[in-house]
Amino acid sequence: MNYRFSDTIDSFKSSAVREILKLTQGKSIISLAGGLPNEQYFPIDAVREAFLRVFEEGKQVLQYGLTEGFTPLRQSIAKHMERKHIHVGVDDMLITTGSQQAIDLLARIYIDPGDVILVERPTYLAAIQIFQSHKARLVSVDGDADGMNLTDLELKIKQYNPKMIYVVPTFSNPAGKSWNLERRQGALDICKRNDVLILEDDPYGELRFGGGEAVPSIFSLDKHPEGCGVVYTSTFSKIVAPALRTGWAIGDAEVIRQMARAKQAADLHSSTMDQQALHQLFEHFDIYSHIDLVRSEYEIRMRQMTDLLSKQNWPGMRWTEPKGGMFIWLELPEYIDTEQLLKLAVEEGVAFVPGIGFFADEPQRNAMRLNFTHTDNVQLVEGFARLDRAIQKVLQPV
Amino acid sequence: MNYRFSDTIDSFKSSAVREILKLTQGKSIISLAGGLPNEQYFPIDAVREAFLRVFEEGKQVLQYGLTEGFTPLRQSIAKHMERKHIHVGVDDMLITTGSQQAIDLLARIYIDPGDVILVERPTYLAAIQIFQSHKARLVSVDGDADGMNLTDLELKIKQYNPKMIYVVPTFSNPAGKSWNLERRQGALDICKRNDVLILEDDPYGELRFGGGEAVPSIFSLDKHPEGCGVVYTSTFSKIVAPALRTGWAIGDAEVIRQMARAKQAADLHSSTMDQQALHQLFEHFDIYSHIDLVRSEYEIRMRQMTDLLSKQNWPGMRWTEPKGGMFIWLELPEYIDTEQLLKLAVEEGVAFVPGIGFFADEPQRNAMRLNFTHTDNVQLVEGFARLDRAIQKVLQPV
Repeated sequence: MNYRFSDTIDSFKSSAVREILKLTQGKSIISLAGGLPNEQYFPIDAVREAFLRVFEEGKQVLQYGLTEGFTPLRQSIAKHMERKHIHVGVDDMLITTGSQQAIDLLARIYIDPGDVILVERPTYLAAIQIFQSHKARLVSVDGDADGMNLTDLELKIKQYNPKMIYVVPTFSNPAGKSWNLERRQGALDICKRNDVLILEDDPYGELRFGGGEAVPSIFSLDKHPEGCGVVYTSTFSKIVAPALRTGWAIGDAEVIRQMARAKQAADLHSSTMDQQALHQLFEHFDIYSHIDLVRSEYEIRMRQMTDLLSKQNWPGMRWTEPKGGMFIWLELPEYIDTEQLLKLAVEEGVAFVPGIGFFADEPQRNAMRLNFTHTDNVQLVEGFARLDRAIQKVLQPV
Repeated sequence: MNYRFSDTIDSFKSSAVREILKLTQGKSIISLAGGLPNEQYFPIDAVREAFLRVFEEGKQVLQYGLTEGFTPLRQSIAKHMERKHIHVGVDDMLITTGSQQAIDLLARIYIDPGDVILVERPTYLAAIQIFQSHKARLVSVDGDADGMNLTDLELKIKQYNPKMIYVVPTFSNPAGKSWNLERRQGALDICKRNDVLILEDDPYGELRFGGGEAVPSIFSLDKHPEGCGVVYTSTFSKIVAPALRTGWAIGDAEVIRQMARAKQAADLHSSTMDQQALHQLFEHFDIYSHIDLVRSEYEIRMRQMTDLLSKQNWPGMRWTEPKGGMFIWLELPEYIDTEQLLKLAVEEGVAFVPGIGFFADEPQRNAMRLNFTHTDNVQLVEGFARLDRAIQKVLQPV
């Protein structure tokens, strides 16, 4: 049998993160690589109660559901979004298998081969994979700690006529940064003027440190007198638990309707068990106190990592304290290739994600993504000792 | 905002079945349209117990899982497949969000725009949608009550050089028919000789009536001295419950690996709550006694429908008693267009699925799909009275 695969498979490279996760399975490696929430804060009793409540409703809870999603859950999420000054109805929303599927479905209905999508530099690794699988051409836009460079954005729009821009403006993966209000409003204005759809990916928005006010989402800034210019997606993976694989997309009702048609072909609908349980969780569990708990615990862990970073004697290192999320972006001297460094690090018993995978073009080779949510302080101290041993092997005398 | 959708959206027509389901929602319409299993036989207590057992394992059950699927569930399914004389390991298997996703993922990695896929006439409506969304060219192969016409299959392979053939050889949707052994073996031989991959979709195989021996699946006939020529997919939707949205694909390890990469981009993984619960169900519930129950109850319902069909005085009607599954294919005189008839039927308060949607080309307009699993006998009698009133309006004097 001679298999005749499609051209598409060339783009389905396995994610570096997941390859590393496989590499470290069963070994005593301290992993700062994954993007895993901390199991310790999974509200398992509440989730269990929520499932039990679903079963109390009777056998019909096990039947097929709507492609668009379990309607009471969409109503719960609409209420949840009100707290973020986002006002949407159930017809403006689609439930997805994680926010990852929202990205894929939007690409399916919006991107033809060769279409340009603008992305941040660096950007979310799996989004690059998805867009490449749809044969999009990805172009990076420059940015700094405050967000995308608006001049470069306008320039790239003129140069490439992109259909879409993909951004993670709040506590980004991998860079851990957050756009300020001016950049958000500016990008929105520029994109709407040029009919460039914004895909705002917001998995980490709730994980805000320091107790201050949230910067408004780009979606909430869009008063859409001429139609909604943003599709916003988020997920329960970071605020409840990943196993439930439930995310959502909101946007213009026509865009959502097309995404639902694509979803109907892709998998008919997502697990309704999980959707019904999440609705029960909204009804009977104080999800906001729970988010506060996760937030403060993650902030403690973030500070443990930045404390350790401050103590390292790695010449040329650069990093910024994140205002939320799960990651710190660490830059080392330019002559260090973190893909090479990873091999040494794994020998020492510690793992991270090399920065290279997070670039759609012109990759930066001297950076790495460090996760601070999944490792306790004892492991973290030991992990940094191991990382230091690996780095010392490649550091050149100053 | 001017939306610039992809070419793909033209192919995402909403399924006629689901549009009808929407039409009938909240109305007192007796629906013979859906492909719904009967809620009455959902093993809700066992499913509830299974979820409780999952929660007993601790917080890590709520963490991210493997794209390929929860390994113990894959082991359980491998054992389950042994009963069908299919011998596979966990690396030959991918867990999907229903078998629908298996079809989509295989199309993603195997089909380039313009590639030809051969299908049965009629065939599963949603498969047509999926393949069209990947811009495949669909060509129907003739068949009869015993399966695909092998002469026509060989002819179409020579004529169109298809990459793949999609078949539902066991208790098909919509035709309710089952291929005999000779056609299965013949199609396998012809396809392997010509490097045409067979996608064998088997959601209904367990729902066998009459207690006889099952005809072997095409997959089990493939002794693959030169590599596996079949990808087989099935689902828990019909033997446990649809809400868990869990299906699986088995095939050559390389094909499965490529499908897993596509799934990693599409949605990372399916709900691990559902997967873990299904594994517990295999461990602690007699799933085979349950299947026997469903089987015998559905056979009773099938006979109730065939009894009613026998009593109708619709000149020119044709139907065959199904040997399993959920559907009867009813043909009316050629001058009757069942899409037109549906409007009259809905006015009378009964729904079915017009046959036209199940054809990739040269549609038959005078057929309909009737579901017998979801309606009790009282409703069924009333439903047939209503259907009769609608049909009498369009019947011409013989």
